[in-house]
Amino acid sequence: MSMNSFGHLFRVTTWGESHGPALGATVDGCPPGVEVTPEMIQHWLDKRKPGQNKYTTQRREADEVRILSGTFEGVTTGTPIQLMIENTDQRSKDYGDIKDKFRPGHADITYFQKYGVRDYRGGGRSSARETASRVAAGGLAREAIKAIAPNVQITGYMVQMGPNKINRDAFDWDQIAQNPFWVPDAQAATDWSAYLDDLRKSGSSVGAIIEVTARGVPAGIGAPVYAKLDTDLAAAMMSINAVKGVEIGEGMSAAMLTGELNADEIFMGDDGQPRYSSNHSGGILGGISTGQDIVVRFAVKPTSSILTTRKTITKQGEETEIITKGRHDPCVGIRAVPVGEAMMACVILDHLLLHRGQIGTNRGHIG
Amino acid sequence: MSMNSFGHLFRVTTWGESHGPALGATVDGCPPGVEVTPEMIQHWLDKRKPGQNKYTTQRREADEVRILSGTFEGVTTGTPIQLMIENTDQRSKDYGDIKDKFRPGHADITYFQKYGVRDYRGGGRSSARETASRVAAGGLAREAIKAIAPNVQITGYMVQMGPNKINRDAFDWDQIAQNPFWVPDAQAATDWSAYLDDLRKSGSSVGAIIEVTARGVPAGIGAPVYAKLDTDLAAAMMSINAVKGVEIGEGMSAAMLTGELNADEIFMGDDGQPRYSSNHSGGILGGISTGQDIVVRFAVKPTSSILTTRKTITKQGEETEIITKGRHDPCVGIRAVPVGEAMMACVILDHLLLHRGQIGTNRGHIG
Amino acid sequence: MSMNSFGHLFRVTTWGESHGPALGATVDGCPPGVEVTPEMIQHWLDKRKPGQNKYTTQRREADEVRILSGTFEGVTTGTPIQLMIENTDQRSKDYGDIKDKFRPGHADITYFQKYGVRDYRGGGRSSARETASRVAAGGLAREAIKAIAPNVQITGYMVQMGPNKINRDAFDWDQIAQNPFWVPDAQAATDWSAYLDDLRKSGSSVGAIIEVTARGVPAGIGAPVYAKLDTDLAAAMMSINAVKGVEIGEGMSAAMLTGELNADEIFMGDDGQPRYSSNHSGGILGGISTGQDIVVRFAVKPTSSILTTRKTITKQGEETEIITKGRHDPCVGIRAVPVGEAMMACVILDHLLLHRGQIGTNRGHIG
Amino acid sequence: MSMNSFGHLFRVTTWGESHGPALGATVDGCPPGVEVTPEMIQHWLDKRKPGQNKYTTQRREADEVRILSGTFEGVTTGTPIQLMIENTDQRSKDYGDIKDKFRPGHADITYFQKYGVRDYRGGGRSSARETASRVAAGGLAREAIKAIAPNVQITGYMVQMGPNKINRDAFDWDQIAQNPFWVPDAQAATDWSAYLDDLRKSGSSVGAIIEVTARGVPAGIGAPVYAKLDTDLAAAMMSINAVKGVEIGEGMSAAMLTGELNADEIFMGDDGQPRYSSNHSGGILGGISTGQDIVVRFAVKPTSSILTTRKTITKQGEETEIITKGRHDPCVGIRAVPVGEAMMACVILDHLLLHRGQIGTNRGHIG
Repeated sequence: MSMNSFGHLFRVTTWGESHGPALGATVDGCPPGVEVTPEMIQHWLDKRKPGQNKYTTQRREADEVRILSGTFEGVTTGTPIQLMIENTDQRSKDYGDIKDKFRPGHADITYFQKYGVRDYRGGGRSSARETASRVAAGGLAREAIKAIAPNVQITGYMVQMGPNKINRDAFDWDQIAQNPFWVPDAQAATDWSAYLDDLRKSGSSVGAIIEVTARGVPAGIGAPVYAKLDTDLAAAMMSINAVKGVEIGEGMSAAMLTGELNADEIFMGDDGQPRYSSNHSGGILGGISTGQDIVVRFAVKPTSSILTTRKTITKQGEETEIITKGRHDPCVGIRAVPVGEAMMACVILDHLLLHRGQIGTNRGHIG
Repeated sequence: MSMNSFGHLFRVTTWGESHGPALGATVDGCPPGVEVTPEMIQHWLDKRKPGQNKYTTQRREADEVRILSGTFEGVTTGTPIQLMIENTDQRSKDYGDIKDKFRPGHADITYFQKYGVRDYRGGGRSSARETASRVAAGGLAREAIKAIAPNVQITGYMVQMGPNKINRDAFDWDQIAQNPFWVPDAQAATDWSAYLDDLRKSGSSVGAIIEVTARGVPAGIGAPVYAKLDTDLAAAMMSINAVKGVEIGEGMSAAMLTGELNADEIFMGDDGQPRYSSNHSGGILGGISTGQDIVVRFAVKPTSSILTTRKTITKQGEETEIITKGRHDPCVGIRAVPVGEAMMACVILDHLLLHRGQIGTNRGHIG
Repeated sequence: MSMNSFGHLFRVTTWGESHGPALGATVDGCPPGVEVTPEMIQHWLDKRKPGQNKYTTQRREADEVRILSGTFEGVTTGTPIQLMIENTDQRSKDYGDIKDKFRPGHADITYFQKYGVRDYRGGGRSSARETASRVAAGGLAREAIKAIAPNVQITGYMVQMGPNKINRDAFDWDQIAQNPFWVPDAQAATDWSAYLDDLRKSGSSVGAIIEVTARGVPAGIGAPVYAKLDTDLAAAMMSINAVKGVEIGEGMSAAMLTGELNADEIFMGDDGQPRYSSNHSGGILGGISTGQDIVVRFAVKPTSSILTTRKTITKQGEETEIITKGRHDPCVGIRAVPVGEAMMACVILDHLLLHRGQIGTNRGHIG
Repeated sequence: MSMNSFGHLFRVTTWGESHGPALGATVDGCPPGVEVTPEMIQHWLDKRKPGQNKYTTQRREADEVRILSGTFEGVTTGTPIQLMIENTDQRSKDYGDIKDKFRPGHADITYFQKYGVRDYRGGGRSSARETASRVAAGGLAREAIKAIAPNVQITGYMVQMGPNKINRDAFDWDQIAQNPFWVPDAQAATDWSAYLDDLRKSGSSVGAIIEVTARGVPAGIGAPVYAKLDTDLAAAMMSINAVKGVEIGEGMSAAMLTGELNADEIFMGDDGQPRYSSNHSGGILGGISTGQDIVVRFAVKPTSSILTTRKTITKQGEETEIITKGRHDPCVGIRAVPVGEAMMACVILDHLLLHRGQIGTNRGHIG
């Protein structure tokens, strides 16, 4: 049991703090024979990297990954893979003036109440910087998935920023990589740009909703009752910094539907596979994949570091005020997109392996 | 690793199907010396029991729990506790006519695709009947919590049924046990009664949102990064049958807030403990409890068993239609209330034990 | 994490005490589609059952197993399998006079020191009766193995009783089932009979060494570094009551060999598979099976319940004496034979599943 | 679940190969507030380091440990601790001529059969070099133990080398650190020196038996039934490279004793604690510590790399011969001493935390 690990067979343990010498992911249980190079993983880290445009924190990190173990001649060996990223732009002096103050909305106070240690350097272990390790592990998972379920395609995108929602009728997969918000709607990309600019200049921040879709996942993966595919996805997404809600398929709105509206009717497709009239289930029934798109959404709260003075207390129990002047994101949800993708990739791979372990190959053939 | 288990130190494994001879929970890691009798656990099972009013399935189950191991002279011994409930009203003949058909919205099809076995008797392992085992384990957890954190109070209630939401201004803890919906708003109880009556008579069903609050939880429990208190709660709630979304504190609405609105400011309370201006965080920061109320919500989809004909396919791959005439709940969310409470109790106890294991006693004293 | 569970993918949790209403095994992760009936499991329980001859305790237990969940129409469904055995001959009054005394060599004192509870009824959870649950789980594992590695044959036998060792030159697989000691040497069976008779009459007891061999295990199962096949076997055997030592292949004697004598040379067999000049390794190199026989031995200490007065103390801390008059085994090692087999079966199945999960099919083909 | 991890609450995952850029241990669950510096851990690594005298491999490794995460200002923070050791003397060219040959007694062949990958550089993950990571984790565990059970003292030593056993009557704790074999018997140290010199010159190797004793462990730690203290110790020791047998207390010889000889009688000590007439149990009854010395022994087989030509096969399935000319240990058991100590330290700490988690403080007071 490790509190800093997730996954059953594809087991990822992340380690490291925002201002230590390095951070990384120790990955155990990866299948052998997977071709993987640092460049393949770097591709995904670059997507998450801060400082790429004016909408993300100006901290400059190379976020360069090294593979310290578990591969030989460019191929995984089946043994633990250590993915390490050195911290290069730590500037812990930035944080000196808040040394004894707890930042509202941050985990400073609860970490102190739990551990009795105040690592004041930018959040320490609770910093969003930890998510770089997840992205590295996710990059590896994507390569391993290819050998088992080559049709799987995992894509994350933003569907809401503050009060602004995308227009689902204008949904365009190709737009996602064309704008800094990973938003699948060209008009929204333009509108949100102006919106976030204003917000950034005012020193404020805003929340967002991210959706991650996995297409091409075979029917039959997932493991009732407490390691359901949706359960593991909910845990994976909720474990990301600042996430406050997770939805599968219809999500919270399922409460508003009647049974007639909610249940997806079943037909036979031309390919001899079941086909559904709709996907309210988000591709999961009873915790097991249906073969439809797996659809997960999660809400990211606004960055708590803002330029407005806030009331707080010190370690010594005195009431005081704080402004957090550091380098921060006006909408941290943007950088959560590749993180959500990475978590999806890890969970899907894990369940592909679990299924193969217990069952071998998909047993229940319809027709 | 067990797919049918949850919890780290207080580890619950449930077993059994809706139409087998019995079901139950094997609980390992319970502290010794906890006074517990079958009656104490029965109290909570009775709350979940079907057939109590016209709004829940007319299946009649005694749901009588037996403690087969792990106690001696009315006290837990520290060894595994087996909680068994025999099935007495199985009537599997009810299900004969749907033997080869997959019920839309149910897990029939995915279980078959995964396991190659069609247990057509009322859902088998995917039946909501499994949640009786959780309620039994939760009853035990409540007794164990008392010895460690006696101020903890766990209460579940419905805050939305279909499109109808409670009036938060009329919130009344005392109302919850006074109506069949566990709703903390007297007016809503009356209104919903009429609403659900109509729905029931029409053979339809509707979803709901349940909120579970844990009051009196000490600051400092939870374990970053992948066993955060909110992560474990999200997994616990999402694992409940028919749940499609989980929220902590502000939940999905956090996306709409700015940083100024979202962060809870911190003060010192008269009791020398931190006090907060609000509870957008739901009592959890960085995965660790703040000492405020822990607030979780989850959405339950409408029962998929309805009296309207639906299109589906058979095991043989032929398109057909189905009506599910069984004994079902028009709003299965009602019976999810005690289940959500039970999951909260198990998670809280588990994290109290984990904290004690790693740290002993709360170390970080403010002031 | 459960302290009363073992196995990674084939996960067994045992529960129950010697004098409670029942005990059993909750088995998760069993492959679906395995044909299994109570009779198939009963076969192995009968082998362990007490009271079958004068060399085992005269406690009379039917040890009748019931399958409460996880099968449908005689086939496993992939969901948790509950194997329950009711206790029928508990006679807890037998133990009344030792209520406050700790029996030397028993776990009475340490359980009390740990848990603060004194379950004086025959050892409670620490009783060898717990091993019935293992045998039930092992019976199930044997059936599941058949579908994956049909050539596997698991056989346990006694190789030493007190100072008496078998004659390896007279080793005869067919003898094992012909005598009450499961000894593969006809002469030993005769000699030991007289030896144990004397011992039994004198109210004494003696230790034994059991060997368990698994033939036909494919090369390549096992998982370095901390879930090695030998590591898991060592844990499995050491967890059996009264076991004080575990050996793989050459075992403790490996200390006495030189490198020349110890390393098994490798050749190519006529079947195109590697063949070895000897099996000092016990069929395991680097924690992974070689394809040779897997050979494990474990030592069982003598039953601590003897008819000689022994010095001890009471719960109150007073020095006193004790004689344990209960119904006990002069050589509890005899009944450990089917238990060792069961543990071997569970471990082998577990590693077959793990291998399939991480790797799919054996990848490294020589030649 | 991770195959490269051990421990329940104090969870250690090792990673890295003999010839990669680095190896290390990711440690999760360490209590916060433990003072630890790289120097404190280095102390134990230096004890294991190769090339210190003519009896250990001449590979020259600095084995310098870096703490990459989990500490702040010299104190553990409660978050994952990354202990990294860079490989500096890899010389993989040494191994080029055996690229396609499997070394008898080594894991080359089984790793290839399992993973389909041949990492021919000195054993890769199966190299004894992996044990450096364990020693680093053990050094950390020792510091953490001090805060919880300050009287614990863990000492390993050699009790047999080849056919030569120590004289137990001459046992002297102070001798252990005085000779290169960690042997507690001055005469043996002298005799073995000559013996091993001869063996080394002849290019041969020999096995050994190591004993590890933990003094001052409080009564009541350990967790029946499958995480018994002896079970976890057996697994911990068996997981060390080249170990073929593990004994607790009387060990395999328990088979030869009668019940009268074996059971340790109990008295009351002057300090109000139970005292025992002997320690056949090795300090563990029913998997729980008695308060006596915990005594574990394990046998290490002779190094398989010897200067004698051995028969083997190639990856292509051809029969051939091999001599392994690398830099190796004539008695690898010597360097296993600090490794055994480290595993003992990790297991003891883990069970101290587990006990505290489930139970809080020792509950059962005698007298």
